[in-house]
Amino acid sequence: MLIQIKDTCNPNQFEKIVEQVKKSGYKTTSVKTFNCHYLVCVGSKEIDIRSIGNLAGIKDIHIVDDSNILVSRQWRVKDTVIDLGDDVVISRDNFTIAAGPCAIENEEQVIKTVNFLNEQNVKIMRGGIFKPRSSPYSFRGLGIEGLQIFSKHCRANGIKVVSEVMQVSQIESMYPYVDIFQVGTRNAQNFNLLDELGKIDKPVLLKRGMSSTLNEFLASAEYIFSSGNEKIILCERGIRSFEKEFRNTLDLNAIPYLKDKSHLPVFCDPSHGVGIREYVEPMALASQMAGADGVLLEIHETPERAASDGQQTLNYYEANNAFKKLRMMEEMKRRM
Amino acid sequence: MLIQIKDTCNPNQFEKIVEQVKKSGYKTTSVKTFNCHYLVCVGSKEIDIRSIGNLAGIKDIHIVDDSNILVSRQWRVKDTVIDLGDDVVISRDNFTIAAGPCAIENEEQVIKTVNFLNEQNVKIMRGGIFKPRSSPYSFRGLGIEGLQIFSKHCRANGIKVVSEVMQVSQIESMYPYVDIFQVGTRNAQNFNLLDELGKIDKPVLLKRGMSSTLNEFLASAEYIFSSGNEKIILCERGIRSFEKEFRNTLDLNAIPYLKDKSHLPVFCDPSHGVGIREYVEPMALASQMAGADGVLLEIHETPERAASDGQQTLNYYEANNAFKKLRMMEEMKRRM
Amino acid sequence: MLIQIKDTCNPNQFEKIVEQVKKSGYKTTSVKTFNCHYLVCVGSKEIDIRSIGNLAGIKDIHIVDDSNILVSRQWRVKDTVIDLGDDVVISRDNFTIAAGPCAIENEEQVIKTVNFLNEQNVKIMRGGIFKPRSSPYSFRGLGIEGLQIFSKHCRANGIKVVSEVMQVSQIESMYPYVDIFQVGTRNAQNFNLLDELGKIDKPVLLKRGMSSTLNEFLASAEYIFSSGNEKIILCERGIRSFEKEFRNTLDLNAIPYLKDKSHLPVFCDPSHGVGIREYVEPMALASQMAGADGVLLEIHETPERAASDGQQTLNYYEANNAFKKLRMMEEMKRRM
Amino acid sequence: MLIQIKDTCNPNQFEKIVEQVKKSGYKTTSVKTFNCHYLVCVGSKEIDIRSIGNLAGIKDIHIVDDSNILVSRQWRVKDTVIDLGDDVVISRDNFTIAAGPCAIENEEQVIKTVNFLNEQNVKIMRGGIFKPRSSPYSFRGLGIEGLQIFSKHCRANGIKVVSEVMQVSQIESMYPYVDIFQVGTRNAQNFNLLDELGKIDKPVLLKRGMSSTLNEFLASAEYIFSSGNEKIILCERGIRSFEKEFRNTLDLNAIPYLKDKSHLPVFCDPSHGVGIREYVEPMALASQMAGADGVLLEIHETPERAASDGQQTLNYYEANNAFKKLRMMEEMKRRM
Repeated sequence: MLIQIKDTCNPNQFEKIVEQVKKSGYKTTSVKTFNCHYLVCVGSKEIDIRSIGNLAGIKDIHIVDDSNILVSRQWRVKDTVIDLGDDVVISRDNFTIAAGPCAIENEEQVIKTVNFLNEQNVKIMRGGIFKPRSSPYSFRGLGIEGLQIFSKHCRANGIKVVSEVMQVSQIESMYPYVDIFQVGTRNAQNFNLLDELGKIDKPVLLKRGMSSTLNEFLASAEYIFSSGNEKIILCERGIRSFEKEFRNTLDLNAIPYLKDKSHLPVFCDPSHGVGIREYVEPMALASQMAGADGVLLEIHETPERAASDGQQTLNYYEANNAFKKLRMMEEMKRRM
Repeated sequence: MLIQIKDTCNPNQFEKIVEQVKKSGYKTTSVKTFNCHYLVCVGSKEIDIRSIGNLAGIKDIHIVDDSNILVSRQWRVKDTVIDLGDDVVISRDNFTIAAGPCAIENEEQVIKTVNFLNEQNVKIMRGGIFKPRSSPYSFRGLGIEGLQIFSKHCRANGIKVVSEVMQVSQIESMYPYVDIFQVGTRNAQNFNLLDELGKIDKPVLLKRGMSSTLNEFLASAEYIFSSGNEKIILCERGIRSFEKEFRNTLDLNAIPYLKDKSHLPVFCDPSHGVGIREYVEPMALASQMAGADGVLLEIHETPERAASDGQQTLNYYEANNAFKKLRMMEEMKRRM
Repeated sequence: MLIQIKDTCNPNQFEKIVEQVKKSGYKTTSVKTFNCHYLVCVGSKEIDIRSIGNLAGIKDIHIVDDSNILVSRQWRVKDTVIDLGDDVVISRDNFTIAAGPCAIENEEQVIKTVNFLNEQNVKIMRGGIFKPRSSPYSFRGLGIEGLQIFSKHCRANGIKVVSEVMQVSQIESMYPYVDIFQVGTRNAQNFNLLDELGKIDKPVLLKRGMSSTLNEFLASAEYIFSSGNEKIILCERGIRSFEKEFRNTLDLNAIPYLKDKSHLPVFCDPSHGVGIREYVEPMALASQMAGADGVLLEIHETPERAASDGQQTLNYYEANNAFKKLRMMEEMKRRM
Repeated sequence: MLIQIKDTCNPNQFEKIVEQVKKSGYKTTSVKTFNCHYLVCVGSKEIDIRSIGNLAGIKDIHIVDDSNILVSRQWRVKDTVIDLGDDVVISRDNFTIAAGPCAIENEEQVIKTVNFLNEQNVKIMRGGIFKPRSSPYSFRGLGIEGLQIFSKHCRANGIKVVSEVMQVSQIESMYPYVDIFQVGTRNAQNFNLLDELGKIDKPVLLKRGMSSTLNEFLASAEYIFSSGNEKIILCERGIRSFEKEFRNTLDLNAIPYLKDKSHLPVFCDPSHGVGIREYVEPMALASQMAGADGVLLEIHETPERAASDGQQTLNYYEANNAFKKLRMMEEMKRRM
């Protein structure tokens, strides 16, 4: 059960609401986000809503069966819209393309990418500056200095910055330079990181854990929301399966499911998902048809020389083709 | 290595070719299909093609690295086209819709379905008469009599019949009534069945084993081809993963992969693949964008009352919508 | 619900029982095995047992919740014992070792193996004569002639023969020469084969499908039992997982589960399960501690020269060690 | 390649070594642990060891093919021994039992558990005070205060404390109270946490990620070692598979593999691994036979009333039985 609290609700009134709900055998969690005040009520008993419905301070009461409550569509029928400013809006009404290199390598690369994205009218640039790597001896990214360069050129061109945060201690230093914090697949159940990202007012792009069930994926989003941040983008990026031809198995089934169960926008990362350059464009188009609200694409001027993930990265010619087709299809979908 | 043998090659010439190839350390398999004569040469040694290139009786020699040779695109660049007669052609140039109930239930159901497909200009009807069921106590299908009814009404309306064969002994009795033999996921590595289906001249729709790697899937097709039947349709239908929300995990990554590696047409079965009615249409559209040459859709006048798989079956209204969108998108793809 | 029918039950009495059960909303299947007559009753309604309990011809009535009924321990508390004759008995009371090469290669190999097993007091020899192979170009086994040689030497030495049957048409020709029919992992859901093996009076060693859930595995055994054959040995042999270091992931969790849910003996095949020679012995011992009633081990005089699966095959020295430890541990378990 | 540096090596000498290795096309990482100084050299070029072998300051040079170098058995043939003081030693020579509740609940529970462990001569107690939970609304543990109570009673009785650390910021506050830091499955690739645990001088029990390959698991251990901490215990605890009967699929194949590839001690957690109380004892014994150097068992006076994981927790009677059998078997293994 989810109770929306009125802005005008005073502490006394709120206490009474909590008391009454607890009496009915529910555990309560008070959640204050940047927008609203909620009381999340967890329990399995039958409840007579009339017993609380008339209490002062309540704006609305919703019965939510899903185990993940705040992210559920059962109470919020309208899709969440995330406004990044400068007319960059993530929503169901316009398909979002975010693109950029796997890792930020140097200023020249940033400038070239920004110029290309500008030409292509792509408004969000991705790029890693902290790189989670299986081996401790691999390149771990340029760090904050890389982010500053990345951010400087994007901001000068009205392009928004999305970059991965790997630990709580990085949040503060990254904050001035990013527009969207990305949580990678290996941190999808790093609950302390999720809790802390719930306390900031910038959107979080949450990648699905490579072995997270969809229910666990939504639970990770619930962590962020219940800590106070409503601006969450879910991103399917491939799961672990027995298949050995691909790095991951991009699970497009997740997309209609997540759109159905949750009000959050759903993105897809076909670059990591299928992991083979030639198959990235068809999988991007497929994800769009499955209902994705946006894609994250790895691009590089010369993928062969990229610092990481070259084998799954589009060059500018391929990226231009993919962008064009995605936009044509979006147009078509609107007319369907 | 694959050697195409000339029609005019005489036994003496053929023997000399085999001898020469064996001398180079290769194992040979002579494959006569309804169209051609091939010599499949398996081995890992370097071979000097000139040593055999001038032998009489050879039409062409191809170096094929893939472990599955006859189904590989490395030697046959043109896609396989399967002509079912009456202008029903399966090929990359036109998107094929096949639809029908999970199981044939009775004559009334067949007539209704045929009428609906006729209205919708759908030229292939699917329907099970032998049903593989996990439990021995479940409904196992109407058998050959069901197929006769199914076939009678389809034939009267120019609609082609696809139905699952479960064992070698059924091939002969099914032969007069089906246009495409379907091999189900549980028989994807029933090698004796594949061998026998290689000896007939009707197309085989081969479903991917629920835990087959893509390489194993192609190997199963190679069994059919190497027994003599070139008319094979590959069909992705979902794999086993850890995810519990879906019956299977439809693996759309398979589609660009199979289209890339093989010259065979590739279908998708989103009904079994995702297994939830509401998600069938988006997954069908997604499979089309991923490159599928056709889809297999479960439809029923009243899915709630279907003998099996009702939860993943579209009703006629939903089917009509899905067909329309698939055709619009196909049109669009052509223009891209 | 399972009803055991008395031997003396006449057709009239039986008909009345069926009628009464159907009235209660149950579907019935009459199962006559070589030992008994059962009526399997499938349905979900509450039933008042008194309404049928007094009918003539009923020996016993059991409420069975499991979806797989005849193989369930809920009605048969005593473990199934399989007597192969000549004092070779498969049961919970003595740990069974079966060993032999992956494939029968020639008479010399058979003689050597039989001699070794004789020395080691191993009473069951395994060996493939029909080999299921992913690729149609791989060695597919010696066929019936190989089996005749295999059988001749085993019989002369009081050793029982277990060998894989791949299709219905092979049952008859194999019947005189084998003591246990093995069903391989790729045929674990070849329901027609299971049905036919239910009609013979020799034991069936049923391997788990590489992607079968434990419930599906038991359902495959239920097919055999419900067709009339009670002599079934379940065999865990590894499942498909994401792990790439091993050919399969031997799932020892299956063993206590199957022993708990079913009355059938449970074997383990660590050779295929882990697939790496050095790890076969520890995994065999582990399976024994997990509760396995027997193991299937691949052995070869010179594994390096085996026709198949050499990398997972023990040589005689290693086999001797493994046998010794398995027997010591068995002794120890008895005392625990 | 791994170079062990002499204690007496001076900075000039060290610089020359690094220079020479880099010239050969290798990337170097200097690793100083609490015991030794290493130079990890990563590269794929052939190297003539003689070119560096005579440089001053080098103690030993090892060719290591494994991608995970410091944890590899290729250079350190002797197993790592971890001495916790008070005669509590983790090594291959004695099987270690660690037991305790899933979560620390209150002082009374701690006292009862400590008393029971004392009686049973179990020298390591496990207990969670920070609990990673899928849902933000579940019980998240007692925190540091719980740990203080836990630690006080253990220390008074010579029992060592193992407890999970979830984030970098907890390390310092937990440090005085734990003897072994546990890293949970969801943090198995939380590389920053691993890096920080590499800087302390207390052992780390590293659980395998639920979808980590064995190679990735060793890479996570390599993170800790390469940051300076050699005291690492690997712990198999179950992976994600398609099987739905169990919470996880305990992968005992991992045990002989890890023992073979690495010099680190290997533990097993059958409680989480199989997740069903009745199967915990057989799986614990099986893990021991597979080669585990120790087990982690969840026990509780009244599992039915445990704050979490009751369904997989042994009561004292069951625990007593399991301990006894594990010790008998250990005795037996020694004699084999």
